[in-house]
Amino acid sequence: MDIEAVRAHLESFTHRDWQESTDGDGPVRFAMVGLGWWTVDKAMPAVENSTFCETTVVVSGSSEKAQEVADDHETVEAGLTYEQFHDGEALEHYDAVYVCTPNALHLEFVESAVEHGKAVLCEKPMEATLERAERMVERHRRAADAPMAMVAYRMHTEPAARCARELVRAGAIGEPVHVHGDMSQGIVGWGRDQWRLDPERAGYGASVMDLGIYSLNTTRFVLEREPVAAQSMMHSTHEYFEDVPDEVAAFTVAFEGDVYATCTASQNAGMNSHLQILGTDGCLTIDPAFHMGSSLQVTVDGSTVDAETASIDQMEEEFDYFADCLLAGRAPYADLEHGLVDMRALEAIYDAADSGETIDL
Amino acid sequence: MDIEAVRAHLESFTHRDWQESTDGDGPVRFAMVGLGWWTVDKAMPAVENSTFCETTVVVSGSSEKAQEVADDHETVEAGLTYEQFHDGEALEHYDAVYVCTPNALHLEFVESAVEHGKAVLCEKPMEATLERAERMVERHRRAADAPMAMVAYRMHTEPAARCARELVRAGAIGEPVHVHGDMSQGIVGWGRDQWRLDPERAGYGASVMDLGIYSLNTTRFVLEREPVAAQSMMHSTHEYFEDVPDEVAAFTVAFEGDVYATCTASQNAGMNSHLQILGTDGCLTIDPAFHMGSSLQVTVDGSTVDAETASIDQMEEEFDYFADCLLAGRAPYADLEHGLVDMRALEAIYDAADSGETIDL
Repeated sequence: MDIEAVRAHLESFTHRDWQESTDGDGPVRFAMVGLGWWTVDKAMPAVENSTFCETTVVVSGSSEKAQEVADDHETVEAGLTYEQFHDGEALEHYDAVYVCTPNALHLEFVESAVEHGKAVLCEKPMEATLERAERMVERHRRAADAPMAMVAYRMHTEPAARCARELVRAGAIGEPVHVHGDMSQGIVGWGRDQWRLDPERAGYGASVMDLGIYSLNTTRFVLEREPVAAQSMMHSTHEYFEDVPDEVAAFTVAFEGDVYATCTASQNAGMNSHLQILGTDGCLTIDPAFHMGSSLQVTVDGSTVDAETASIDQMEEEFDYFADCLLAGRAPYADLEHGLVDMRALEAIYDAADSGETIDL
Repeated sequence: MDIEAVRAHLESFTHRDWQESTDGDGPVRFAMVGLGWWTVDKAMPAVENSTFCETTVVVSGSSEKAQEVADDHETVEAGLTYEQFHDGEALEHYDAVYVCTPNALHLEFVESAVEHGKAVLCEKPMEATLERAERMVERHRRAADAPMAMVAYRMHTEPAARCARELVRAGAIGEPVHVHGDMSQGIVGWGRDQWRLDPERAGYGASVMDLGIYSLNTTRFVLEREPVAAQSMMHSTHEYFEDVPDEVAAFTVAFEGDVYATCTASQNAGMNSHLQILGTDGCLTIDPAFHMGSSLQVTVDGSTVDAETASIDQMEEEFDYFADCLLAGRAPYADLEHGLVDMRALEAIYDAADSGETIDL
């Protein structure tokens, strides 16, 4: 594909090719579980701006917090504690559940949602450990009339990532050869009391679980290939990271067809993110990539073109995609089995650092 | 350092801070050994344009080739065969030797240069294997009045790399956290008969030896830290690469202070190169990096500035640097011991791929 063919391809790109519902369908009413800054400052405003979603219930470990957030939002009809949620209060007020708690609480909330027959959108990584993620999948699989369940990978509805996937499919860069991915940020300024630094709540570690998963999963999504082996190095020096192994991590994941993704992640670095896919005939670069707001460049034959994909709110797209699947009665792309593949790779990445050996998946 | 301080730093940057000689010094007269396209199309024009160098002897495996190139260049006084060079012909016509043969011939030419008392600039990697590189160092070390010897890392005099090193030293990006490096190109179009595809002449492999060494060595140079461990994955699928393990390679090198450099290299991919160094306070990106012509960007506090370093001919800079050291009687930065560190790391990278284990250096 020459650069003019790439340009033509970019012009024909539609980032909401998945949408089946039309304005006026829905709304899908959400119970938002876990009222940290991501839910309150990112997810709830996105839902408010979305086409098919509405927040009607909020759920927090603190009844005061739940009440406070409920009072602040016109559409919210109930503020529940975690216990009240598990007990099935206010079931008539919501259709779906967004789980945005520390990783190690995902399982119990997904279990309750499934029990209540509510569709569930669970943040990534889907749980703190592979074993707990497997229990989640098993619990969902065993349920009669299991409701729809999706893992919240916001890059799947990001136009830059969808466009990159289309270009790979169309052969714009030839055969994929290798990938570079990074997601890094500095969380030391947020203070020491963070669940990401607590293995009881975060799981295997701080940086690969929370940030590295973006490079891993977006590579899966764009290449449509699955991971087959992993190796890594990681270390922690700063006192905040004394309980987790990965203040900084470098990991390489081999994908089907011998495509290597070399990735880094750090929670104690400058803010940075990119995903670059080099093929036999060209290169796709998403930079910035993962901190909300992504930009795609395509290089073919020494010429580079900016994809100029639509600038959207990633959380709004993700919620609308979830609602669209639910309203249309179709399965979402990132079901729990999809999430489980990442959990296997994440466990392997941590095991590989520990053993110094390459781990086959 | 804020972005204004970075700008001030960039304005004060001088890329020939190493120069002691003045116009009219020299010339250092070179015997060019190995008359492939790199020597004839890159090195000899660079020497012709340089301030302190001149090509006066050319040496080839073929006497016809040597005579042809000699006839084409006004300054050349003798065209020698490899044998005539080893035998010490035309010694009065040159002061220094540039060795640009297949890797596995470097040792014998450096040995002859040392024997003839001629300064030597040896292409990278310095030899095909660690064992042969060690013999080169040993031979040089044992010589009475050993002449100056340097390994030809052209990034050491590239302004973008020198500027990046100064910015790291000045703390512009805080503490270095991790590095991404790539150098890839497509050599299949050049046909099958290439020494890079022949382990007898290239050494351990095709891509890491020839291309990956740029990410490895430039990271050493910019960070002023040495490698301490390596892991890697590599594979060959294309028939041209059946005798070498690394049509594509991904390798991670841990540097002193737990800075990880995640790197890729492929001789069967689109042309691409970059070196990105993320620190606790900012980011340095050299992109393009390694295919002659480098561009440095500095990101601090969310602002990015183009370093706009001087656009120079890397080979011309390198030859003048070598000549300047020789004329001033000072040791070059990249002496043979410096090159040996890379050879140890290269061997470890290939061993790591073979064993699937992390190799300590």
